Amino acid sequence: MKEVAEELAKKQKEISIAEFFEKNKHILGYSNPSKAIITCVREAIDNSLDACEEAGILPDIFVKIDKINSKFYRVTVEDNGPGIVEEQIPKVFGKLLYGSRFHAIRQSRGQQGIGISAAVLYAQLTSGKPAKIISKISPEKKAIKIELFINTRKNEPEIVSREEIDWYLSRGTRIELELAGNYVRERKQSVYEYIRETSVVNPHAKITFVEPDGTIHEFPRVVEELPKIPKEIKPHPHGIELGLLMNMLKTTKARDLKSFLKQEFVRIGEKTAKSVIEKAKLDANLDPRSMSREEAISLLEAFMQTDFLPPPTDCLSPIGERNIVKSLQEGFRPEFVYAITRKPKVYSGHPFLVEVGIGYGGEISEDKTSILRYANKIPLLYQQGGCALTKAVMSVKWKNYGLQQSKDSLPNRTIILVHIASTNVPYTSESKEAIASVPEIMDEVKLALQECGRKLKEYLDKKEKIFKKKKKEDVLKRVLPLLAKKLSEILEEEEVDCEMIVAKIVGNVYVKRVLEGERVKILVYNFTQSKKKLTIYEMCHGNLKVEKGEAKIRSGNYSTLMWEVVLTPGEFSELVYTFDGKIVNKKPLVSGVGEEELSGGEILVS
Amino acid sequence: MKEVAEELAKKQKEISIAEFFEKNKHILGYSNPSKAIITCVREAIDNSLDACEEAGILPDIFVKIDKINSKFYRVTVEDNGPGIVEEQIPKVFGKLLYGSRFHAIRQSRGQQGIGISAAVLYAQLTSGKPAKIISKISPEKKAIKIELFINTRKNEPEIVSREEIDWYLSRGTRIELELAGNYVRERKQSVYEYIRETSVVNPHAKITFVEPDGTIHEFPRVVEELPKIPKEIKPHPHGIELGLLMNMLKTTKARDLKSFLKQEFVRIGEKTAKSVIEKAKLDANLDPRSMSREEAISLLEAFMQTDFLPPPTDCLSPIGERNIVKSLQEGFRPEFVYAITRKPKVYSGHPFLVEVGIGYGGEISEDKTSILRYANKIPLLYQQGGCALTKAVMSVKWKNYGLQQSKDSLPNRTIILVHIASTNVPYTSESKEAIASVPEIMDEVKLALQECGRKLKEYLDKKEKIFKKKKKEDVLKRVLPLLAKKLSEILEEEEVDCEMIVAKIVGNVYVKRVLEGERVKILVYNFTQSKKKLTIYEMCHGNLKVEKGEAKIRSGNYSTLMWEVVLTPGEFSELVYTFDGKIVNKKPLVSGVGEEELSGGEILVS
Repeated sequence: MKEVAEELAKKQKEISIAEFFEKNKHILGYSNPSKAIITCVREAIDNSLDACEEAGILPDIFVKIDKINSKFYRVTVEDNGPGIVEEQIPKVFGKLLYGSRFHAIRQSRGQQGIGISAAVLYAQLTSGKPAKIISKISPEKKAIKIELFINTRKNEPEIVSREEIDWYLSRGTRIELELAGNYVRERKQSVYEYIRETSVVNPHAKITFVEPDGTIHEFPRVVEELPKIPKEIKPHPHGIELGLLMNMLKTTKARDLKSFLKQEFVRIGEKTAKSVIEKAKLDANLDPRSMSREEAISLLEAFMQTDFLPPPTDCLSPIGERNIVKSLQEGFRPEFVYAITRKPKVYSGHPFLVEVGIGYGGEISEDKTSILRYANKIPLLYQQGGCALTKAVMSVKWKNYGLQQSKDSLPNRTIILVHIASTNVPYTSESKEAIASVPEIMDEVKLALQECGRKLKEYLDKKEKIFKKKKKEDVLKRVLPLLAKKLSEILEEEEVDCEMIVAKIVGNVYVKRVLEGERVKILVYNFTQSKKKLTIYEMCHGNLKVEKGEAKIRSGNYSTLMWEVVLTPGEFSELVYTFDGKIVNKKPLVSGVGEEELSGGEILVS
Repeated sequence: MKEVAEELAKKQKEISIAEFFEKNKHILGYSNPSKAIITCVREAIDNSLDACEEAGILPDIFVKIDKINSKFYRVTVEDNGPGIVEEQIPKVFGKLLYGSRFHAIRQSRGQQGIGISAAVLYAQLTSGKPAKIISKISPEKKAIKIELFINTRKNEPEIVSREEIDWYLSRGTRIELELAGNYVRERKQSVYEYIRETSVVNPHAKITFVEPDGTIHEFPRVVEELPKIPKEIKPHPHGIELGLLMNMLKTTKARDLKSFLKQEFVRIGEKTAKSVIEKAKLDANLDPRSMSREEAISLLEAFMQTDFLPPPTDCLSPIGERNIVKSLQEGFRPEFVYAITRKPKVYSGHPFLVEVGIGYGGEISEDKTSILRYANKIPLLYQQGGCALTKAVMSVKWKNYGLQQSKDSLPNRTIILVHIASTNVPYTSESKEAIASVPEIMDEVKLALQECGRKLKEYLDKKEKIFKKKKKEDVLKRVLPLLAKKLSEILEEEEVDCEMIVAKIVGNVYVKRVLEGERVKILVYNFTQSKKKLTIYEMCHGNLKVEKGEAKIRSGNYSTLMWEVVLTPGEFSELVYTFDGKIVNKKPLVSGVGEEELSGGEILVS
């Protein structure tokens, strides 16, 4: 009698990766028709940008979407990149899990070797039509035009046609796909929005986009330099897994442990290698291939106990604080904006860095509150709810930073931009829509958000403080003179200097000019809580002569006197000069103090 | 001179699927240590349940987690399933994309051929230790014990050791993995919770779980029958893609188009095949292999225009309305509960069905509001925010159904259970944590939710109506008698029957017993808006004699009179009898009307 297990065994079968994704196309981002078009465009643009940057070419990308009928569209993406050699074309576009960027430790948009061949797979699955590829690698050569399918059972390309053609570009790649789709224009999740957001963080790229109705959008090149090309590096000793380390030991070409450490890792030199080996209580001459699991564990523990330099920044390509601030300012006109690029860190051996920008208030109304997520300079449009970046933003207690926030939601009236750049971005799936909750990354994002939060709080506190102080000052300025008048009537004394009293109460610097004929006395009081280094300016047509205080004189259309005065809290200074023309400035001009802390004088706006 | 493209071409390389997942283990659900343990346990239990059900065995599963040290745990899962034949063991556990359930169109937990080998991969990556497998396929044979690694470069198993051993089970499989992890007990996302929720929807399984501290949890078998084993079916013509159809045409063994349709699809018989071919304007004798793309499109369009029977239900295995209601009642003690199992539908050729249960109020307090997601009877614990099932729940306007709901959140004081059963569940990633937004599925979930919503609204409306009516009645009952008394004093007339007036105002059935010596008159009024079929009961020790109305008499310890009375709105009836003993019931007993619609009499509780 046959056992059940023997019956069941007959059904066991190998599954090709192409079959797998044919059945599970939603995993690749093809779960509905409108998303399908966006995903195709995105995969093609990502490839174009990567290829241009690797070849040191300023990208010039052309995207066109044509409507064939109510269900089918044609997507065309063309770039001025280096092109692809003919032998590689079939595999690059017609084989899943094939590529040049998977094994390299360096930031790039493509990292899986799946994206563009998945687009080809989806297109053929829905339209039954082959992908059309044109590639030209040199102005001296003809372009190659290839039409191909993916054989899903084998996960191998099947070439339908191949010809040499004349082509107007000197170098470049063009892909044309026909697919079932739905073109949507007016919403956040659209091809237009994807290209717009891509253009914002890739100012060196020029992108032209032609919509199905013929509308042309030009996203011009704003910066004429390529970003620094990220360098390929070796793995960093922090965060490497035991299994991976054992695999490295087994396959290294190094003859002894010390050379192994120096050759296979970044940030391990002669000295560090010695120190690690000592901590691990191992022999520097050990043959790596002979090392046991226990010895590998000792080595790993020694890694953990050692402070290595963080991985070199040059394998990563941040957007940069200035670019983030600029794009938030231009896109949203907030009253406050701040951005931070954190230092690179490591998770599971992969370097990564986090950048966060925050815009608050101004033209950001309540309903504009949102989060912009980027990974390796690719905007993430879908799966916001399932993304660790969103969770990190929501987990920060924004009330502590002076913002309103409901439970499980974004802080009110803010735009928060989060960018993770890594040699291996931990997406939750092959569709590259959301970031997985990797603890090291979550921590970094939170720290960056908190720093932004602190800066925002400083701003809000200062705003609040100025507001309160001004309110207090206004009240005092209204009430005190009346009080003083009454008092002087009763006491039959001269009226007091109310402005000085107000300055004293609210804690300001107080500057007063007293005219005595052609002699001028300037009184400077520091009623604040801190030491002040002030400069006082007086300007006059005619001659000026200093009588008290050391002053510089600058002559021109009129003469300018400048005193530098340093006053500790509570201190007072008297400056005196004579004049024979006409004083230009109504009140003494002052620099070295904020407007909110000055009474009597006027701030010099330089 | 070499072109850039030629330099770049050198880096192009094939990527093994095991390498891919080694680098992207978060995609498989291994993004942090506590999740890693849950994912391992889950993959092993899914496999055990599938194997037992396929073999027709009531599952008896043993799960044990041991703490090795602060970072490493050992996970052991053992079942009484059919076992695995020796030749298959290495590939089943040591090769990704290998399995028996991928190509079958039938509901099963495993569908990717990735799960358990991914657990092996994660274990070896973090602990450097091989997986230990024991399998026994017959009581007459010895068990086989194998230790193996996955060679990630090749995606092939590497056997470390193999021996035949004696084993206490007559059949079964056991897997033991050592891995980096973190065991958490007290929260929703835990091994305990995963097993508990699994047990709820798999009442035919017995699961024993031993925690690291030795605590034993028994989840007993509640039902002694296996659920019907889902049958394997052929693809359904609705929802099939063009590319897939063309592939089927190319590879079929059928010689002509008509046989092709009948052989390769479910729900196409002789008659339907003819009708489809006619609509497509094709020849029934066409050789499928010779058909052009245009002909395939015509065929596909004919599919769209044809109403096929929905796919047979027997490829799917729902939880069932009764089981859902029961588990919600027992788990949460709500005041209202309802469940619905929808009919099967199709997306992209895959049959699926949706089940929804809702529990409201009672012991479900505000902070217990939650959603329970299941796919093919597997509880989904992670990625709630990124799951289409959650989005569907939030997109329903629950306010229309009488519930409170904040923006982007769950309706208040409800537990909503959503189950999708399919031959191919569209998970957003290989980690099987969230469902993709497939339009057909979203629609079905919404329809199911809306039906639950309507039932809930009916309940809430009725509750509200009764509440209002009772309130009105109470006020009238308090006020009317006083009013009546005053009136009768003024008019010097007999007091009116206030209870009847109240009944008339609120629209009830009113029953009144009037005693006249040994003669009893029963007055029955129908003041409601609908026709009522009532039964009136009177009971008496001694003799009863009917004088008016047709009544049945039942004798026993005492005699019972039963009148059947049908009254249209506004109608009235008089029943008369004599008695010589003692009347048992204080008020006339009534059935055929709800308590909220009866005045005067008492509801007969049967």
